[in-house]
Amino acid sequence: MSDTLTPEKIMHLGMAFWGSKTLLSAIELDVFTILAQKPLDAEGLRRQLGLHPRSARDFFDALVSLGMLDRKDGLYMNTTETELFLDKAKPSYIGGFLEMANARLYKSWGALTEGLRTGQPQNEVKDGGGFFETLYSDPVKLKTFLQSMTGLSMWASKAIAQKFPWQNYNTFFDIGTAQGGLPVQVALAHSHLTGGGFDLPASQLIFEEYVRSNLLSDRLRFIAGDFFRDPLPKADVLSMGHILHDWNLEEKKQLIRKAYDALSPGGALIIFESLIDDDRRRNTFGLLMSLNMLIELPGGFDYTGTDCTGWLREGGFRETRVEHLVGPDSMVIGIK
Amino acid sequence: MSDTLTPEKIMHLGMAFWGSKTLLSAIELDVFTILAQKPLDAEGLRRQLGLHPRSARDFFDALVSLGMLDRKDGLYMNTTETELFLDKAKPSYIGGFLEMANARLYKSWGALTEGLRTGQPQNEVKDGGGFFETLYSDPVKLKTFLQSMTGLSMWASKAIAQKFPWQNYNTFFDIGTAQGGLPVQVALAHSHLTGGGFDLPASQLIFEEYVRSNLLSDRLRFIAGDFFRDPLPKADVLSMGHILHDWNLEEKKQLIRKAYDALSPGGALIIFESLIDDDRRRNTFGLLMSLNMLIELPGGFDYTGTDCTGWLREGGFRETRVEHLVGPDSMVIGIK
Repeated sequence: MSDTLTPEKIMHLGMAFWGSKTLLSAIELDVFTILAQKPLDAEGLRRQLGLHPRSARDFFDALVSLGMLDRKDGLYMNTTETELFLDKAKPSYIGGFLEMANARLYKSWGALTEGLRTGQPQNEVKDGGGFFETLYSDPVKLKTFLQSMTGLSMWASKAIAQKFPWQNYNTFFDIGTAQGGLPVQVALAHSHLTGGGFDLPASQLIFEEYVRSNLLSDRLRFIAGDFFRDPLPKADVLSMGHILHDWNLEEKKQLIRKAYDALSPGGALIIFESLIDDDRRRNTFGLLMSLNMLIELPGGFDYTGTDCTGWLREGGFRETRVEHLVGPDSMVIGIK
Repeated sequence: MSDTLTPEKIMHLGMAFWGSKTLLSAIELDVFTILAQKPLDAEGLRRQLGLHPRSARDFFDALVSLGMLDRKDGLYMNTTETELFLDKAKPSYIGGFLEMANARLYKSWGALTEGLRTGQPQNEVKDGGGFFETLYSDPVKLKTFLQSMTGLSMWASKAIAQKFPWQNYNTFFDIGTAQGGLPVQVALAHSHLTGGGFDLPASQLIFEEYVRSNLLSDRLRFIAGDFFRDPLPKADVLSMGHILHDWNLEEKKQLIRKAYDALSPGGALIIFESLIDDDRRRNTFGLLMSLNMLIELPGGFDYTGTDCTGWLREGGFRETRVEHLVGPDSMVIGIK
């Protein structure tokens, strides 16, 4: 046994759910939204949050040590990052996905072992009902979910708005658009574009509200439909963000074929995901996202850029490329 | 809004429970114990583990990307660290605490927000019964728990065996000894010492089995007792590892006074914990361990070296010092 080896890295990873849940509870409790108004001392913050005195200070100082809060002269305040990204009052808020993780995924992942043994989803579906059927039948849950998708995709959407040659195209539709996170970022950056989002009818009002709040209702519209049953809207560019990974291989290929059919000649399909690296050993988030598809859905899985360009070629696209966006996210582009 | 800021750090922490639970499930499934016998390809490993084909490869590659497995030419194998620390067949196995985290704490921590609001424990105690009463009445659960404590304290115990001047003392007892993790490491390193461990009667057989397996039965014995009701064993050195943090302030001080009374003149009390740094902003594990005391127990909390030396002085100890051990753990020493 080597004396230089310690189990620290193992213990750190194994117990990482402590720090993770601490941040998720802080978001749930509006810690960052409250501190965005003004710095507070421990007692002031505790009272505003309605916390019991026993562990409030440990909670706040744990957030300091995790790099999520600053503390100066006894006053707690947001860091530059949490001030920007976790204040619910700011449009730059990205906590929606973390809110969903706290409300749903943390618990579902508790049954990961059972999921691995059975290959079956471990979320609310265990109590009966399909994931999307259940979700889209409850307007409040649906809005939270769709907002969480906007948060998850916000930074990748900004990168797509910058990195894709939008000047070469005029119309675009985002397939499975949820709240319209991607079309809004693209339309904000490129005033010559028109298009919108395609999703199930239940998303329409939530999409339209979000587009209106971004003053884009004149250029972005909603088309209601089921992407397996209905034809996709015709456009120069179609995009699918965190959509293909929800589905099994045959369904993935079917969606790619339908996109091909709907595109103008020379048009482009943009697929973006937390793509697994081709060697399947670096993009941890992509690999764990694939396990999240096990937890959430009957056949979904994440995939590599090489997997995806293969399906695009098979679906008729004449040219393909993979481009990194930001963090764990990349896009795959297919040209018709 | 700055363009150089990204929410990556926030997302990474918020979703860290994914990677954490992936490792915990791997330990539960004996991934590392099986691979310690020989490297296996994805299909061989999947079959041995009894996993469904759907997500097995994602699971294995996620462990590679998390640094917990290596993969060469399609064969999965342990890393140097996981081979040493997570193979259940080796005495260097430290996964007991992680097993307990997987079986109990992950779920209990799901109710952190409620714990913070109420100040009340969120573990099995919510269904009635006290933590230790429930634990010590179930021999199987007790053994798992006591083994988990050995795993948690193993590296700190080795450090205490090295860093404390044991040559100046002859007898020692570990208070709240569980399986005897600390006395075993100390006695293995110092053949002149005799002593043992003190704990509730239910621990006796588990302690004696562990001591016997380390060939130390001639020098280490078990004394059964309740450290609040009974006097502590007399010795030159007494130790308490991850004991004081279980209790409220008055109980902590009471245990320190009882240790003072039982020590020889010039004797030493060693207290070791994941001590919070005095500025309460660096030792994340110590701060989160204190939140774990909220989840687990009615009044426990972790504390800083300065907190503890203050209590030792108040309890009559004439000399105190704080010394770092390994990772998040430090010891506080009080000389009578």
